[in-house]
Amino acid sequence: MQKFVNQKEKMVDESIAGFVNCYKNTVERLECERSLKYSQAPIREKVGIVTGGGWGHDPAFMGYLGKNMLDAVAIGNTFSPPSAEAFAAAFRAADAGRGVVCLFGNFPQDIASVNAAVSLVSKEGIVVKTIISNDDVAETDQSKRRGATGEVLLWKIAGAAAALRYSLEDVVLVCQRALDNMRTIAVGLASCIIPEIGRPNYLIERGTMEIGVSHHGLMSKETCKLRSAQETAEIMLANLLQSITLTSGDDVLVMLSGLGNTMLSELYILYNHVEDALRDRDINIYRSMAGNYFTSLDMMGATLTILRLDSELKELIELPAFPAAFDQFSSGWSQKTESIQ
Amino acid sequence: MQKFVNQKEKMVDESIAGFVNCYKNTVERLECERSLKYSQAPIREKVGIVTGGGWGHDPAFMGYLGKNMLDAVAIGNTFSPPSAEAFAAAFRAADAGRGVVCLFGNFPQDIASVNAAVSLVSKEGIVVKTIISNDDVAETDQSKRRGATGEVLLWKIAGAAAALRYSLEDVVLVCQRALDNMRTIAVGLASCIIPEIGRPNYLIERGTMEIGVSHHGLMSKETCKLRSAQETAEIMLANLLQSITLTSGDDVLVMLSGLGNTMLSELYILYNHVEDALRDRDINIYRSMAGNYFTSLDMMGATLTILRLDSELKELIELPAFPAAFDQFSSGWSQKTESIQ
Repeated sequence: MQKFVNQKEKMVDESIAGFVNCYKNTVERLECERSLKYSQAPIREKVGIVTGGGWGHDPAFMGYLGKNMLDAVAIGNTFSPPSAEAFAAAFRAADAGRGVVCLFGNFPQDIASVNAAVSLVSKEGIVVKTIISNDDVAETDQSKRRGATGEVLLWKIAGAAAALRYSLEDVVLVCQRALDNMRTIAVGLASCIIPEIGRPNYLIERGTMEIGVSHHGLMSKETCKLRSAQETAEIMLANLLQSITLTSGDDVLVMLSGLGNTMLSELYILYNHVEDALRDRDINIYRSMAGNYFTSLDMMGATLTILRLDSELKELIELPAFPAAFDQFSSGWSQKTESIQ
Repeated sequence: MQKFVNQKEKMVDESIAGFVNCYKNTVERLECERSLKYSQAPIREKVGIVTGGGWGHDPAFMGYLGKNMLDAVAIGNTFSPPSAEAFAAAFRAADAGRGVVCLFGNFPQDIASVNAAVSLVSKEGIVVKTIISNDDVAETDQSKRRGATGEVLLWKIAGAAAALRYSLEDVVLVCQRALDNMRTIAVGLASCIIPEIGRPNYLIERGTMEIGVSHHGLMSKETCKLRSAQETAEIMLANLLQSITLTSGDDVLVMLSGLGNTMLSELYILYNHVEDALRDRDINIYRSMAGNYFTSLDMMGATLTILRLDSELKELIELPAFPAAFDQFSSGWSQKTESIQ
């Protein structure tokens, strides 16, 4: 395995330690070592914003800790949910007395961990509301739809709403509305290597691609011949539009994310065709972004997320945020939040 | 080739078009289509900051256009220098009457293009000063040392100095001092595929690694057995310290960059060991950053850059900048620069 690693069994913990060492002005590790918090959390009179999930999705989840975004995160093993204890520690670290919103993906084990953690901290008087992201349209049955890259936008929106001192109920309301107006689809071009086992957990044949591949590389909706960037973008958009109705004049945010081993330049090429296809439908792209927001180890592929915006969602998207993984150049700003500690 | 592409011959131009489409509030394509500028450039009474280089180094070069960083860039073909015309167009777009600083890597063809462009625009009254980055220590002969990831820090410093309205001469002086105090080393773990030819231009055997590999995948200093992350970090640092003397109490910036297909988590693991080794030498890490700052297509590997800081360099590093490729969350700030247009 051509990777920078000491012992593969220690990769998760060593990478978390390294992230905290590298960004020690912005983040802190908690006593529960699979839980991290933004240094300034809990923040006075602010609802706490928490997420968590399996390791292997750089820069999710920990990279989004920072001003006006996440207050605390819980981290599991590779593609495995965090423990209830890790979520509970994150809730405690984020709570400033106004409650906590936990936004996470729709996976049965994650739900079990979060529910157990909510129960644990409720005895300590901490109120936690949950939003279960199910933006991935690969599953057509809504109850089975998984969480995907769109979670990043929920964290952005929740972080902004909390920073503006929305109440717990109002943070939940606006996040739920964002979720209802958001869909994601993934396309996989090559599988990822699970470091602990040193090989892929599935295979994508050369010359083919997987429409609706999951962030864990499984359960794709359809295997088809590898297509051109233009055809692929159109297939992705068609899948989204089966699940969300966009009307002429709608304002949307478009987010393209690489899955690991995909160049930004490939995302920019896909973007051209998404823009063309939306323009043909008279949909207005209010904001667009292309980057590695939520990866799957070293998978080749990309996700396309579309979020329909209203005026409140636009305001929340526009509020500057400074997540640690994106804040190396703008970082002078990140130290300006008040803490209650 | 498992990539999102239409025709491989059009990949460079389509990706540039997609970048500009995606970030059209921040960047603009010039009439010379291989030249882009920050939307707000030229900026009143500010020295213009320009760079350029071959395609395939996402998010360099175009991703660093933005407030307090680059005003204009020129882009070549894959791993090939931009034309003199592309550099000349970038110089014209960046110049606000106070001159332009062009910072670029030490490669003979790039130097030829820049020199020809400087000559072209000098007839139009535009004064251009050049800084040729040679931070890569893989070559021990200083005149042959190539430019590498450290260029990103030069752009940051030059952009900040210009934003603070340094004179042309003073921007050059501080950049030259930064360059004298900066070194980079790369380690390659797997080669990259050149899209136009669909295969790697060299081979790194499994179980080996290349110390001092270039950003174009060639001319490494040494092939050796694949080592642990800790050993690799120590080898990288030892290579740097052969070329730059760090003294107990020095303040440094540490930058780790992935070369494409390397997880952020691997960089964080490397960071632990760089930090330990510097602490053992009583060197103070003033700032640290780990990300994909300057890649080589889908190469596996990483670069380590160390910049020794003085008080002026610290101030310039601290000034917030908003390069397009890193500005998707903090972007509310990016529209607040005055233009002279």
